[in-house]
Amino acid sequence: MNRPIGVIDSGVGGMTVARELMRQLPNEELIYVGDTLRCPYGPRPEQEVREFTWQMVNFLLTKHIKMLVIACNTATAFTLEELKKELDIPVIGVIQPGARAAIKSTKNLHIGVIGTEGTISSRAYTDALQHINAHIHVNSLACPPFVPLVEQGILSGPRAKHVVSETLQPMKESNHIDTLILGCTHYPLLEDTIQEVMGDQITIICSGDETAREVSVILDYYNSLYEGERVPEHHFYATGDKDLFEQVANDWFDEPIFNIRLLDLEGINTHN
Amino acid sequence: MNRPIGVIDSGVGGMTVARELMRQLPNEELIYVGDTLRCPYGPRPEQEVREFTWQMVNFLLTKHIKMLVIACNTATAFTLEELKKELDIPVIGVIQPGARAAIKSTKNLHIGVIGTEGTISSRAYTDALQHINAHIHVNSLACPPFVPLVEQGILSGPRAKHVVSETLQPMKESNHIDTLILGCTHYPLLEDTIQEVMGDQITIICSGDETAREVSVILDYYNSLYEGERVPEHHFYATGDKDLFEQVANDWFDEPIFNIRLLDLEGINTHN
Repeated sequence: MNRPIGVIDSGVGGMTVARELMRQLPNEELIYVGDTLRCPYGPRPEQEVREFTWQMVNFLLTKHIKMLVIACNTATAFTLEELKKELDIPVIGVIQPGARAAIKSTKNLHIGVIGTEGTISSRAYTDALQHINAHIHVNSLACPPFVPLVEQGILSGPRAKHVVSETLQPMKESNHIDTLILGCTHYPLLEDTIQEVMGDQITIICSGDETAREVSVILDYYNSLYEGERVPEHHFYATGDKDLFEQVANDWFDEPIFNIRLLDLEGINTHN
Repeated sequence: MNRPIGVIDSGVGGMTVARELMRQLPNEELIYVGDTLRCPYGPRPEQEVREFTWQMVNFLLTKHIKMLVIACNTATAFTLEELKKELDIPVIGVIQPGARAAIKSTKNLHIGVIGTEGTISSRAYTDALQHINAHIHVNSLACPPFVPLVEQGILSGPRAKHVVSETLQPMKESNHIDTLILGCTHYPLLEDTIQEVMGDQITIICSGDETAREVSVILDYYNSLYEGERVPEHHFYATGDKDLFEQVANDWFDEPIFNIRLLDLEGINTHN
């Protein structure tokens, strides 16, 4: 099907999901909206997150997307069920894919989850995990220092290791988990440092990578994958400073990102 | 949703998928049909495999299953598209989940696939992989000695290692793949030996484990997961010797399998 996949995020973090989509589904065209002007969503109240999310969604619906990916854990926690109900295209968030991958991976049924304050206090991962298997023990921890660290480009080295090690101390002390979900799309940039701090025996699950895989499952299930081979042209929209978006995205990834445009969301209806 | 998941296989191999379903979705009830009387399907002509598969499916439809899992690679290769079209419940095979997991895993785009003669000569994995990404190099190899080895219970030790090593020699010599799909539901029983022979640098994908995960994706997507917690009662049907089925299944797994009944499929309509 020759229509794009829409990806929304509170900022640049969802680019980890977009990149994984490009890798796993190289013929699919993406339209990415990052609400960099109002990032982060983590500490915002639910009503505000819902309003901002609907603005991005309504913009993408004018682009005739065939599927919506909510590449932000906070927005997923607050809007997934509502968007699934209201839209007539498939909608997927990052939480359920991460939860399912963790359930597949765990042997001892002890799973750790790290994320923003908003995601952790919503208990969305705990609910998703225990909805599938009530016997799973969930150890969750908000890690507020990680997003600023990533956005400053401090991904490895002694400073990153110090912050990660100190923040994850309570998770390490619990000492039971065999699987750790990175429940924030910024965190995969710190994956190597997190693995080093937690030890090799812990399996790390990147919700974004798992989401890309589930997009493939659902598009395939609906016979909606693009038929044929092409080099798709992706489009990126940022609501804030687009040069900063470009710089951060290019710092994170090997290939440069072009086609970044500035988007004014505040004139867009906040309701469907 | 309080209806069972139907699982079909040419014999006992699909029990690796059923076990993984029980582990990943512990509240779901399964009805498993193994056509042990007419196993293996690998060397049979397409028309015969389709006919036998429809008999199992028609039996399961009388049990009001909410989803059908074709836990047999050969049957998936020959009947998945037809069953997806004809049935009004979700249908999943083992090939696409294995292919998608391999695409997620590979870094160098060189993927190996091993399976029965029927599965390999159908090119179903190659098609599934290259449909998603035309740049993937697929190295496939039929491994006829593996199913008899598993069915004799020779899963490790020097004899298993010798057979596995000799059979996989052409795959080892190609020396490029970073990911190997076990494209037969019997093969996960040999996983440790296969890993030892291929080396630690190769990521092994068990199609059955990945299928269980995708069942979870699709049931969740349709809001069809069982709501609540229970210890479900599973039902197993074998068309051949049910004592042998019981013995093999119990040899493979930690928990014993009960409720195995004998099923006569030959009186069942072969068409929908």
